[in-house]
Amino acid sequence: MSVTTRDSGLYEVTQAIADWVSQQRILDGLLTVFIRHTSASLVIQENADPDVIRDLDDFFARVVPEDDRLYRHTAEGSDDMPAHIRSALTSTQLSIPVIEASMVLGTWQGIYVFEHRSGRFSRNLALHLLGD
Amino acid sequence: MSVTTRDSGLYEVTQAIADWVSQQRILDGLLTVFIRHTSASLVIQENADPDVIRDLDDFFARVVPEDDRLYRHTAEGSDDMPAHIRSALTSTQLSIPVIEASMVLGTWQGIYVFEHRSGRFSRNLALHLLGD
Amino acid sequence: MSVTTRDSGLYEVTQAIADWVSQQRILDGLLTVFIRHTSASLVIQENADPDVIRDLDDFFARVVPEDDRLYRHTAEGSDDMPAHIRSALTSTQLSIPVIEASMVLGTWQGIYVFEHRSGRFSRNLALHLLGD
Repeated sequence: MSVTTRDSGLYEVTQAIADWVSQQRILDGLLTVFIRHTSASLVIQENADPDVIRDLDDFFARVVPEDDRLYRHTAEGSDDMPAHIRSALTSTQLSIPVIEASMVLGTWQGIYVFEHRSGRFSRNLALHLLGD
Repeated sequence: MSVTTRDSGLYEVTQAIADWVSQQRILDGLLTVFIRHTSASLVIQENADPDVIRDLDDFFARVVPEDDRLYRHTAEGSDDMPAHIRSALTSTQLSIPVIEASMVLGTWQGIYVFEHRSGRFSRNLALHLLGD
Repeated sequence: MSVTTRDSGLYEVTQAIADWVSQQRILDGLLTVFIRHTSASLVIQENADPDVIRDLDDFFARVVPEDDRLYRHTAEGSDDMPAHIRSALTSTQLSIPVIEASMVLGTWQGIYVFEHRSGRFSRNLALHLLGD
Protein backbone atom coordinates (compact mmCIF):
# COMPACT_ATOMS: atom_id res chain seq x y z
CA MET A 1 0.00 0.00 0.00
CA SER A 2 1.36 3.44 -0.77
CA VAL A 3 0.44 6.97 0.25
CA THR A 4 1.41 10.14 -1.61
CA THR A 5 2.24 13.10 0.64
CA ARG A 6 2.66 16.73 -0.40
CA ASP A 7 4.00 18.39 2.76
CA SER A 8 4.66 17.58 6.42
CA GLY A 9 1.51 16.63 8.32
CA LEU A 10 -0.84 13.71 8.99
CA TYR A 11 -2.58 11.72 6.24
CA GLU A 12 -5.40 9.45 7.37
CA VAL A 13 -5.31 5.84 6.13
CA THR A 14 -7.92 4.25 8.42
CA GLN A 15 -10.48 3.47 5.74
CA ALA A 16 -7.98 2.10 3.24
CA ILE A 17 -6.56 -0.23 5.90
CA ALA A 18 -10.04 -1.26 7.11
CA ASP A 19 -10.96 -2.14 3.51
CA TRP A 20 -7.82 -4.26 3.13
CA VAL A 21 -8.53 -6.07 6.42
CA SER A 22 -12.11 -6.82 5.41
CA GLN A 23 -10.89 -8.43 2.17
CA GLN A 24 -8.59 -10.97 3.86
CA ARG A 25 -9.61 -14.53 4.65
CA ILE A 26 -8.47 -14.14 8.26
CA LEU A 27 -11.33 -12.99 10.51
CA ASP A 28 -9.58 -12.88 13.91
CA GLY A 29 -5.96 -11.95 14.35
CA LEU A 30 -3.37 -9.23 14.60
CA LEU A 31 -2.90 -6.56 11.95
CA THR A 32 0.54 -4.98 11.70
CA VAL A 33 1.14 -1.76 9.79
CA PHE A 34 4.82 -1.09 9.09
CA ILE A 35 6.13 2.03 7.33
CA ARG A 36 9.27 1.39 5.26
CA HIS A 37 10.84 4.82 5.78
CA THR A 38 12.82 6.74 8.40
CA SER A 39 11.52 10.25 7.66
CA ALA A 40 7.80 9.44 7.88
CA SER A 41 6.07 7.49 10.63
CA LEU A 42 2.74 6.19 11.96
CA VAL A 43 0.48 7.50 14.68
CA ILE A 44 -3.01 6.80 15.99
CA GLN A 45 -4.82 10.04 16.75
CA GLU A 46 -8.24 11.61 17.15
CA ASN A 47 -10.06 11.82 13.83
CA ALA A 48 -12.94 14.04 14.98
CA ASP A 49 -11.49 17.59 15.04
CA PRO A 50 -8.99 18.31 12.21
CA ASP A 51 -7.31 20.93 14.46
CA VAL A 52 -5.81 18.08 16.49
CA ILE A 53 -3.60 16.89 13.65
CA ARG A 54 -2.54 20.47 12.80
CA ASP A 55 -1.59 21.15 16.42
CA LEU A 56 0.31 17.88 16.49
CA ASP A 57 2.38 18.79 13.44
CA ASP A 58 3.07 22.26 14.93
CA PHE A 59 4.22 20.76 18.22
CA PHE A 60 6.79 18.58 16.48
CA ALA A 61 8.02 21.57 14.44
CA ARG A 62 8.61 23.49 17.70
CA VAL A 63 10.34 20.67 19.59
CA VAL A 64 12.47 19.52 16.66
CA PRO A 65 13.55 22.76 14.97
CA GLU A 66 14.78 22.95 11.37
CA ASP A 67 18.07 24.62 12.22
CA ASP A 68 21.16 23.36 10.39
CA ARG A 69 23.44 24.52 13.19
CA LEU A 70 21.98 21.79 15.43
CA TYR A 71 22.80 18.88 13.12
CA ARG A 72 25.71 17.25 11.31
CA HIS A 73 23.43 15.50 8.77
CA THR A 74 22.30 18.43 6.61
CA ALA A 75 23.18 17.31 3.05
CA GLU A 76 19.63 16.11 2.27
CA GLY A 77 18.00 19.41 3.31
CA SER A 78 17.08 21.26 6.49
CA ASP A 79 13.97 19.14 6.99
CA ASP A 80 15.73 15.77 6.76
CA MET A 81 17.40 15.34 10.16
CA PRO A 82 14.34 16.77 11.98
CA ALA A 83 12.29 14.20 10.00
CA HIS A 84 14.45 11.34 11.33
CA ILE A 85 14.08 12.63 14.91
CA ARG A 86 10.31 13.08 14.57
CA SER A 87 10.10 9.50 13.26
CA ALA A 88 12.02 8.20 16.28
CA LEU A 89 9.61 10.06 18.61
CA THR A 90 6.53 8.47 17.01
CA SER A 91 6.11 4.93 15.56
CA THR A 92 7.47 2.93 12.64
CA GLN A 93 5.04 0.11 13.38
CA LEU A 94 1.56 -0.33 14.84
CA SER A 95 -0.21 -3.62 15.61
CA ILE A 96 -3.98 -3.68 16.10
CA PRO A 97 -6.11 -6.69 17.13
CA VAL A 98 -8.75 -7.70 14.58
CA ILE A 99 -12.08 -9.31 15.56
CA GLU A 100 -14.60 -10.45 12.95
CA ALA A 101 -12.64 -8.71 10.20
CA SER A 102 -12.64 -5.32 12.00
CA MET A 103 -9.87 -3.53 13.88
CA VAL A 104 -10.67 -2.89 17.57
CA LEU A 105 -10.07 0.86 17.25
CA GLY A 106 -11.75 3.17 19.74
CA THR A 107 -14.55 5.48 18.56
CA TRP A 108 -12.28 8.46 17.88
CA GLN A 109 -9.13 6.66 16.80
CA GLY A 110 -7.80 7.09 13.28
CA ILE A 111 -4.57 5.69 11.77
CA TYR A 112 -2.32 8.30 10.16
CA VAL A 113 0.85 8.42 8.12
CA PHE A 114 2.85 11.24 9.70
CA GLU A 115 4.91 12.84 6.93
CA HIS A 116 7.86 14.77 8.33
CA ARG A 117 9.35 16.19 5.14
CA SER A 118 8.32 19.02 2.85
CA GLY A 119 7.82 18.21 -0.81
CA ARG A 120 6.13 15.30 -2.50
CA PHE A 121 6.83 11.71 -1.42
CA SER A 122 5.40 8.29 -2.06
CA ARG A 123 5.37 6.38 1.25
CA ASN A 124 5.21 2.62 1.29
CA LEU A 125 3.34 0.69 4.02
CA ALA A 126 3.55 -3.06 4.58
CA LEU A 127 0.28 -4.54 5.89
CA HIS A 128 0.38 -7.93 7.56
CA LEU A 129 -2.44 -9.95 9.12
CA LEU A 130 -1.75 -13.01 11.23
CA GLY A 131 -4.46 -15.24 12.70
CA ASP A 132 -7.22 -17.73 11.94
CA MET B 1 -10.16 -4.78 30.44
CA SER B 2 -10.70 -1.30 31.85
CA VAL B 3 -8.74 0.98 34.16
CA THR B 4 -10.16 3.92 36.11
CA THR B 5 -7.86 6.93 36.33
CA ARG B 6 -8.26 9.95 38.62
CA ASP B 7 -5.59 12.33 37.34
CA SER B 8 -2.66 12.41 34.91
CA GLY B 9 0.05 9.89 35.77
CA LEU B 10 0.97 6.22 35.42
CA TYR B 11 -1.24 3.36 36.56
CA GLU B 12 0.38 -0.07 36.73
CA VAL B 13 -1.48 -2.94 35.06
CA THR B 14 1.27 -5.60 34.97
CA GLN B 15 -0.36 -8.01 37.42
CA ALA B 16 -3.83 -7.76 35.89
CA ILE B 17 -2.39 -8.51 32.45
CA ALA B 18 -0.20 -11.35 33.77
CA ASP B 19 -3.31 -12.91 35.36
CA TRP B 20 -5.23 -12.66 32.09
CA VAL B 21 -2.32 -14.25 30.15
CA SER B 22 -2.05 -17.13 32.63
CA GLN B 23 -5.75 -17.92 32.16
CA GLN B 24 -5.56 -18.35 28.37
CA ARG B 25 -5.15 -21.70 26.64
CA ILE B 26 -2.25 -20.38 24.60
CA LEU B 27 1.08 -21.04 26.33
CA ASP B 28 3.53 -19.60 23.80
CA GLY B 29 2.79 -16.62 21.64
CA LEU B 30 2.56 -12.87 21.35
CA LEU B 31 0.50 -10.70 23.68
CA THR B 32 -0.70 -7.38 22.32
CA VAL B 33 -2.04 -4.64 24.58
CA PHE B 34 -3.92 -1.92 22.70
CA ILE B 35 -5.41 1.20 24.35
CA ARG B 36 -8.57 2.44 22.64
CA HIS B 37 -8.01 6.15 23.36
CA THR B 38 -6.00 9.10 22.03
CA SER B 39 -5.52 10.99 25.31
CA ALA B 40 -4.08 8.09 27.33
CA SER B 41 -1.31 5.72 26.27
CA LEU B 42 0.87 2.77 27.26
CA VAL B 43 4.44 2.64 28.48
CA ILE B 44 6.79 0.04 29.95
CA GLN B 45 8.79 1.54 32.81
CA GLU B 46 10.73 0.72 35.93
CA ASN B 47 8.44 -0.51 38.70
CA ALA B 48 11.00 -0.43 41.52
CA ASP B 49 11.20 3.23 42.59
CA PRO B 50 7.84 5.11 42.45
CA ASP B 51 9.76 8.38 41.90
CA VAL B 52 10.50 7.24 38.33
CA ILE B 53 6.87 7.42 37.27
CA ARG B 54 6.39 10.80 38.99
CA ASP B 55 9.45 12.23 37.24
CA LEU B 56 8.17 10.83 33.94
CA ASP B 57 4.80 12.56 34.31
CA ASP B 58 6.57 15.84 35.27
CA PHE B 59 8.84 15.64 32.21
CA PHE B 60 5.87 15.36 29.87
CA ALA B 61 4.14 18.28 31.61
CA ARG B 62 7.25 20.43 31.00
CA VAL B 63 7.78 19.44 27.36
CA VAL B 64 4.09 19.60 26.40
CA PRO B 65 2.79 22.67 28.26
CA GLU B 66 -0.90 23.26 29.01
CA ASP B 67 -1.04 26.67 27.34
CA ASP B 68 -4.10 27.41 25.21
CA ARG B 69 -2.18 29.97 23.15
CA LEU B 70 -0.11 27.14 21.64
CA TYR B 71 -3.08 25.15 20.31
CA ARG B 72 -6.12 25.50 18.06
CA HIS B 73 -7.91 22.52 19.65
CA THR B 74 -8.91 23.93 23.06
CA ALA B 75 -12.67 23.29 23.25
CA GLU B 76 -12.30 20.11 25.33
CA GLY B 77 -10.12 21.77 27.99
CA SER B 78 -6.52 22.94 28.40
CA ASP B 79 -5.31 19.42 29.11
CA ASP B 80 -6.84 17.83 26.00
CA MET B 81 -4.45 18.80 23.19
CA PRO B 82 -1.38 18.19 25.41
CA ALA B 83 -2.90 14.75 26.13
CA HIS B 84 -3.05 13.96 22.41
CA ILE B 85 0.58 15.02 21.95
CA ARG B 86 1.75 13.03 24.97
CA SER B 87 -0.04 10.00 23.55
CA ALA B 88 1.73 10.42 20.20
CA LEU B 89 5.10 10.58 22.02
CA THR B 90 4.49 7.31 23.88
CA SER B 91 2.64 4.15 22.69
CA THR B 92 -0.89 3.17 21.76
CA GLN B 93 0.13 -0.48 21.49
CA LEU B 94 2.67 -2.84 23.06
CA SER B 95 3.39 -6.43 22.04
CA ILE B 96 5.22 -8.76 24.42
CA PRO B 97 6.37 -12.33 23.70
CA VAL B 98 4.85 -14.97 26.00
CA ILE B 99 6.66 -18.19 26.95
CA GLU B 100 5.00 -20.84 29.11
CA ALA B 101 2.12 -18.51 29.91
CA SER B 102 4.41 -15.71 31.17
CA MET B 103 5.44 -12.45 29.53
CA VAL B 104 9.21 -12.12 28.93
CA LEU B 105 9.42 -8.84 30.86
CA GLY B 106 12.76 -7.85 32.34
CA THR B 107 13.19 -7.85 36.12
CA TRP B 108 12.29 -4.18 36.59
CA GLN B 109 9.78 -3.76 33.78
CA GLY B 110 6.17 -2.90 34.58
CA ILE B 111 3.34 -2.13 32.12
CA TYR B 112 1.55 1.16 32.75
CA VAL B 113 -1.46 3.03 31.46
CA PHE B 114 -0.23 6.62 31.10
CA GLU B 115 -3.20 8.90 31.73
CA HIS B 116 -2.66 12.34 30.25
CA ARG B 117 -5.83 14.11 31.36
CA SER B 118 -6.99 15.48 34.69
CA GLY B 119 -10.28 14.25 36.07
CA ARG B 120 -11.75 10.76 36.21
CA PHE B 121 -11.71 8.49 33.17
CA SER B 122 -12.42 4.87 32.41
CA ARG B 123 -9.78 3.63 29.96
CA ASN B 124 -10.43 0.58 27.83
CA LEU B 125 -7.62 -1.84 26.87
CA ALA B 126 -7.92 -4.62 24.29
CA LEU B 127 -5.79 -7.68 25.16
CA HIS B 128 -4.97 -10.13 22.40
CA LEU B 129 -2.89 -13.32 22.52
CA LEU B 130 -1.83 -15.11 19.37
CA GLY B 131 0.09 -18.40 19.33
CA ASP B 132 -0.09 -22.13 20.13
CA MET C 1 20.32 -12.20 22.16
CA SER C 2 22.47 -9.69 24.00
CA VAL C 3 24.28 -6.50 23.02
CA THR C 4 27.16 -4.92 24.94
CA THR C 5 27.09 -1.11 25.01
CA ARG C 6 29.89 1.21 26.12
CA ASP C 7 28.21 4.62 26.20
CA SER C 8 24.93 6.27 25.21
CA GLY C 9 24.19 6.04 21.49
CA LEU C 10 22.82 3.69 18.84
CA TYR C 11 24.14 0.17 18.20
CA GLU C 12 23.03 -1.50 14.99
CA VAL C 13 21.63 -5.03 15.28
CA THR C 14 20.02 -5.43 11.84
CA GLN C 15 22.36 -8.13 10.55
CA ALA C 16 22.34 -10.20 13.74
CA ILE C 17 18.52 -10.19 13.73
CA ALA C 18 18.35 -10.96 9.98
CA ASP C 19 20.65 -13.95 10.57
CA TRP C 20 18.44 -15.22 13.40
CA VAL C 21 15.31 -14.83 11.24
CA SER C 22 16.88 -16.71 8.34
CA GLN C 23 17.70 -19.65 10.63
CA GLN C 24 14.10 -20.20 11.82
CA ARG C 25 11.73 -22.72 10.27
CA ILE C 26 9.04 -20.09 9.87
CA LEU C 27 9.25 -18.40 6.45
CA ASP C 28 6.31 -15.98 6.63
CA GLY C 29 5.22 -14.29 9.81
CA LEU C 30 5.75 -11.51 12.30
CA LEU C 31 9.07 -10.87 14.04
CA THR C 32 8.91 -9.12 17.40
CA VAL C 33 12.01 -7.60 19.00
CA PHE C 34 11.53 -6.77 22.69
CA ILE C 35 14.19 -5.11 24.87
CA ARG C 36 14.05 -6.22 28.50
CA HIS C 37 15.21 -2.91 29.99
CA THR C 38 13.83 0.52 30.89
CA SER C 39 17.00 2.59 30.30
CA ALA C 40 17.74 1.37 26.76
CA SER C 41 15.28 1.11 23.90
CA LEU C 42 14.79 0.22 20.23
CA VAL C 43 14.55 2.41 17.17
CA ILE C 44 14.50 1.96 13.39
CA GLN C 45 16.64 4.60 11.71
CA GLU C 46 18.58 5.41 8.59
CA ASN C 47 21.70 3.27 8.33
CA ALA C 48 23.34 5.13 5.43
CA ASP C 49 24.95 8.22 7.01
CA PRO C 50 26.44 7.63 10.51
CA ASP C 51 25.85 11.31 11.32
CA VAL C 52 22.12 10.57 11.61
CA ILE C 53 22.52 8.40 14.67
CA ARG C 54 24.94 10.89 16.28
CA ASP C 55 22.49 13.75 15.72
CA LEU C 56 19.71 11.60 17.14
CA ASP C 57 21.63 10.92 20.35
CA ASP C 58 22.47 14.65 20.66
CA PHE C 59 18.83 15.64 20.23
CA PHE C 60 17.74 13.41 23.09
CA ALA C 61 20.53 14.78 25.30
CA ARG C 62 19.24 18.32 24.65
CA VAL C 63 15.55 17.56 25.21
CA VAL C 64 16.08 15.34 28.26
CA PRO C 65 18.85 17.10 30.20
CA GLU C 66 21.01 15.38 32.82
CA ASP C 67 20.22 17.82 35.60
CA ASP C 68 19.57 16.36 39.04
CA ARG C 69 17.47 19.37 40.05
CA LEU C 70 14.79 18.27 37.57
CA TYR C 71 14.30 14.78 39.02
CA ARG C 72 13.46 13.00 42.26
CA HIS C 73 15.00 9.70 41.09
CA THR C 74 18.74 10.48 41.21
CA ALA C 75 20.17 7.69 43.38
CA GLU C 76 21.34 5.59 40.38
CA GLY C 77 23.24 8.46 38.75
CA SER C 78 22.50 11.61 36.77
CA ASP C 79 22.01 9.64 33.56
CA ASP C 80 19.45 7.20 34.97
CA MET C 81 16.20 9.20 35.05
CA PRO C 82 16.95 10.79 31.63
CA ALA C 83 17.51 7.22 30.37
CA HIS C 84 14.02 6.18 31.54
CA ILE C 85 12.46 9.21 29.84
CA ARG C 86 14.38 8.64 26.60
CA SER C 87 13.16 5.02 26.64
CA ALA C 88 9.54 6.16 27.04
CA LEU C 89 9.98 8.52 24.05
CA THR C 90 11.25 5.72 21.79
CA SER C 91 10.25 2.01 21.69
CA THR C 92 10.53 -1.01 23.96
CA GLN C 93 9.20 -3.27 21.21
CA LEU C 94 9.23 -3.43 17.41
CA SER C 95 7.33 -5.90 15.23
CA ILE C 96 8.35 -6.39 11.59
CA PRO C 97 6.57 -8.54 8.99
CA VAL C 98 8.71 -11.36 7.55
CA ILE C 99 8.29 -12.69 4.00
CA GLU C 100 10.35 -15.61 2.68
CA ALA C 101 12.60 -15.47 5.75
CA SER C 102 13.42 -11.77 5.29
CA MET C 103 12.19 -8.71 7.16
CA VAL C 104 10.31 -6.20 4.97
CA LEU C 105 12.62 -3.33 5.97
CA GLY C 106 12.91 -0.36 3.63
CA THR C 107 16.18 0.21 1.76
CA TRP C 108 17.65 2.59 4.34
CA GLN C 109 16.12 1.13 7.51
CA GLY C 110 18.35 -0.33 10.20
CA ILE C 111 17.34 -1.69 13.62
CA TYR C 112 19.21 -0.16 16.55
CA VAL C 113 19.53 -0.64 20.27
CA PHE C 114 19.43 2.89 21.68
CA GLU C 115 21.56 2.91 24.83
CA HIS C 116 20.67 5.82 27.09
CA ARG C 117 23.21 5.36 29.87
CA SER C 118 26.93 6.01 30.12
CA GLY C 119 29.17 3.13 31.11
CA ARG C 120 29.17 -0.48 30.02
CA PHE C 121 25.95 -2.51 29.92
CA SER C 122 24.83 -5.85 28.58
CA ARG C 123 21.37 -5.41 27.04
CA ASN C 124 19.08 -8.37 26.57
CA LEU C 125 16.71 -8.66 23.58
CA ALA C 126 13.94 -11.23 23.21
CA LEU C 127 13.35 -12.24 19.58
CA HIS C 128 10.05 -13.90 18.70
CA LEU C 129 8.78 -15.11 15.33
CA LEU C 130 5.17 -16.14 14.83
CA GLY C 131 3.79 -17.53 11.58
CA ASP C 132 3.82 -20.49 9.19
